[in-house]
Amino acid sequence: MAKNFTKREENYSEWYNDLVVRADLAESSAVRGCMVIKPYGYAIWEKMQAALDKMFKDTGHQNAYFPLFIPKSFFSREADHVAGFAKECAVVTHYRLKADEAGGVSVDPAARLEEELIVRPTSETIIWNTYKGWIQSYRDLPILVNQWANVVRWEMRTRLFLRTAEFLWQEGHTAHATREEAEAEARRMLDVYADFAENFMAMPVIKGTKTPNERFAGALETYCIEAMMQDGKALQAGTSHFLGQNFAKAFDVTFLNKENKLEHVWATSWGVSTRLMGALIMTHSDDHGLVLPPKLAPIQVAIVPIFKNAEQLAQISEKVNAIKAALEAQGISVKYDDRDSQKPGWKFTEYEFKGVPVRIAVGPRDLEEGTAEVCRRDTLEKSVHAMDDLAKFIPALLDEIQRNLFERALKHREDNTIKVDTWEEFKEKIEQGKFILAHWDGTSETEQKIKDETKATIRALSLDLPAEEGKCIYSGQPSHRRVIFAKAY
Amino acid sequence: MAKNFTKREENYSEWYNDLVVRADLAESSAVRGCMVIKPYGYAIWEKMQAALDKMFKDTGHQNAYFPLFIPKSFFSREADHVAGFAKECAVVTHYRLKADEAGGVSVDPAARLEEELIVRPTSETIIWNTYKGWIQSYRDLPILVNQWANVVRWEMRTRLFLRTAEFLWQEGHTAHATREEAEAEARRMLDVYADFAENFMAMPVIKGTKTPNERFAGALETYCIEAMMQDGKALQAGTSHFLGQNFAKAFDVTFLNKENKLEHVWATSWGVSTRLMGALIMTHSDDHGLVLPPKLAPIQVAIVPIFKNAEQLAQISEKVNAIKAALEAQGISVKYDDRDSQKPGWKFTEYEFKGVPVRIAVGPRDLEEGTAEVCRRDTLEKSVHAMDDLAKFIPALLDEIQRNLFERALKHREDNTIKVDTWEEFKEKIEQGKFILAHWDGTSETEQKIKDETKATIRALSLDLPAEEGKCIYSGQPSHRRVIFAKAY
Repeated sequence: MAKNFTKREENYSEWYNDLVVRADLAESSAVRGCMVIKPYGYAIWEKMQAALDKMFKDTGHQNAYFPLFIPKSFFSREADHVAGFAKECAVVTHYRLKADEAGGVSVDPAARLEEELIVRPTSETIIWNTYKGWIQSYRDLPILVNQWANVVRWEMRTRLFLRTAEFLWQEGHTAHATREEAEAEARRMLDVYADFAENFMAMPVIKGTKTPNERFAGALETYCIEAMMQDGKALQAGTSHFLGQNFAKAFDVTFLNKENKLEHVWATSWGVSTRLMGALIMTHSDDHGLVLPPKLAPIQVAIVPIFKNAEQLAQISEKVNAIKAALEAQGISVKYDDRDSQKPGWKFTEYEFKGVPVRIAVGPRDLEEGTAEVCRRDTLEKSVHAMDDLAKFIPALLDEIQRNLFERALKHREDNTIKVDTWEEFKEKIEQGKFILAHWDGTSETEQKIKDETKATIRALSLDLPAEEGKCIYSGQPSHRRVIFAKAY
Repeated sequence: MAKNFTKREENYSEWYNDLVVRADLAESSAVRGCMVIKPYGYAIWEKMQAALDKMFKDTGHQNAYFPLFIPKSFFSREADHVAGFAKECAVVTHYRLKADEAGGVSVDPAARLEEELIVRPTSETIIWNTYKGWIQSYRDLPILVNQWANVVRWEMRTRLFLRTAEFLWQEGHTAHATREEAEAEARRMLDVYADFAENFMAMPVIKGTKTPNERFAGALETYCIEAMMQDGKALQAGTSHFLGQNFAKAFDVTFLNKENKLEHVWATSWGVSTRLMGALIMTHSDDHGLVLPPKLAPIQVAIVPIFKNAEQLAQISEKVNAIKAALEAQGISVKYDDRDSQKPGWKFTEYEFKGVPVRIAVGPRDLEEGTAEVCRRDTLEKSVHAMDDLAKFIPALLDEIQRNLFERALKHREDNTIKVDTWEEFKEKIEQGKFILAHWDGTSETEQKIKDETKATIRALSLDLPAEEGKCIYSGQPSHRRVIFAKAY
């Protein structure tokens, strides 16, 4: 399985591609830029979905479903929005095929749509057109709705999970009576995303706002969580937008407020996608394969018996089944791999490669001594324990691994985040894969020039960085805060 | 809420449309034939999904995800398949919009796809093209994969849930080493569907096979579950297909068997969709609104306080919160509606209309006497109970309602299923909305003539009807079994 597996040091990008395919997470499909998410990868995504869905519901949101297609004319209604998405839209123009002379099928020219349909790249327009019918009075507000769906953005350069033409995501779309309430909602969902990233994915994130250049097309403010990958590049892991009244105005969505006056509704939208799978992989995995945080691992514990004959296996199985039952009773997912067709060593490598957090091996000597060998995936450390202790030790170990992965990733980010005050140093450090805290004069022009010269972008105006007077790293103009620069996925 | 609500007797079809919209289940969207599934409707669908997903996993299946788009050329590979779906395909021809002179956007003619992409109407072709890469040896089999997804079939006449251009569904696609194993899988999933329909939806179903005319495009055998709606029409609620080696041959998917010989792989596919929502509504609901079986009701118990002032409400709430906690501890979903903005009578009507299985009312006199009034939605019967008994009574009542709904629907079907042996009686009874057990000569020709003359179709060759010699109801030719005729949705 792990033979000829590219090392991170050799080529980080190839290591990633290799890992995604060989760990059975996803593969490229016959359709340009679209991926197949394989069962093991999808099982991780399902765990992410379940955790996020619960958090959304706990904060008062409900799920719904809106059409895949958006009439082309809806797109022009919000000027920034159409400018942002028009260049990467899949367009449906016909609704029928017909048999052709060559024995194949061709598009039936008689079945041309009057108005073309866009495959949704995001759903603000179709949803706000729908909300118009749902909202008359302040009593109809707020609307707190989320949808789990597929979306399509015709990206030219695609990479599995990180950037694909079709991807899976959730998109929350909320409607509010006041600006304050909508702003609070956008912030609340940012916190939900950060909580999920840190406590489930064990991935530390920086919470911040985007510069106008990097905002969502149609938003007044875009909040984001940004994570550092192992190569020092940034990955935008989730965004939450305060949309003001832009979409309400574009789709004429008004309500009678308590004073019986007509007002436009305030909006937010927020989303995370299968891109999180890429973030998860690139935050923790190593040269031995995937490393999964216990809270998102489809298999949390793999147990491998070491045996020479059926009798030995039966003896081991009796013990293992008791351990397995004790762990499962605590909600831990355990796989007992008693296949005869593969050797223990092959299985060890396999579970290591698949990122299973804990592996337990039980052999004949363990049987005699009442012990088992436990190997933790994050450090690959092995230790021997009394079988009777495992029901207590393993849950604690899973917690410890979850915590350690977060701490390790946090330390990596902190070790690679630096303050820089000269342009020379900036150019040097950005090449080394650092997060750079530097002063910026606040203009889009300077932001663009820095990007052109170094490929670094402003990842976030961190919510946690204090105000500080200084001079722009590039223009020398006055600045009132440092912002975070990095190269990004 | 329920004012001017169409009665079933007056116009069954209008009653259904009215109910779907006014109970907040779904509505038509701005896109022809596509629906918006509203939060309350989606919550029911989520409960269906959760139950089905567990059943799939309990029978060894895993979820995965395949692309939304299918290259047009894949469609021609399996002749029956393309013939079945070509006439209702949404076709993507371009991948970019551009600003036009009128200030809107138009399709960029320069961004035409080399090969058109079909929005999946079903995924056999893209999945079997993928399986080609997954299968080399018998050791790679079986593959037991399911996907939850949206699909598009460009239907001309659409109705919310029953027939929409886009719908949500699951599609299982399995690959096997032998014919026997694939046939057994198709049968197993039929049983899973029947189990779900009867035990969760409380909807009795007939298990059977389809005639060649009604088979899935590309299948050797289509198994189905058929249910009777309240108007006597049939609704196909789920299908499971034995596909033979058709798709393996079309996509050249072979494997080395244990004797080291190359063989084509055997296949099944099976699916149920949001159409089940329509079946659920039309099986149980009445002139007072929705009736939901407890196992699929998002709110199982609604509690309404009757109070004149804040002090009374506080006293009632104290009691109600204890009841609520006791029910929730048993996994029952309870809504305590203590809003001051609506009168109790309005709330009663609302929960009745939304199909909440049990409503509890607690007023000042109940407080004095330690009682509560319980109303069950299926029969609208009211009874008074000691508050202290509710934690025990309510779970039993929910079971009783679940059982009663099934029994009631079964009796309705049995009362409206008849054996018919003359063509005159056939024509008369089919108009009355009956399931007719009649002899058929086994030819597609006769089947088509009967359909042309009466709109009745053969719903199923029931697996439970015994062999019986007779004469075809239409042609008078010899027949060896009765089949089920009905008009259908």
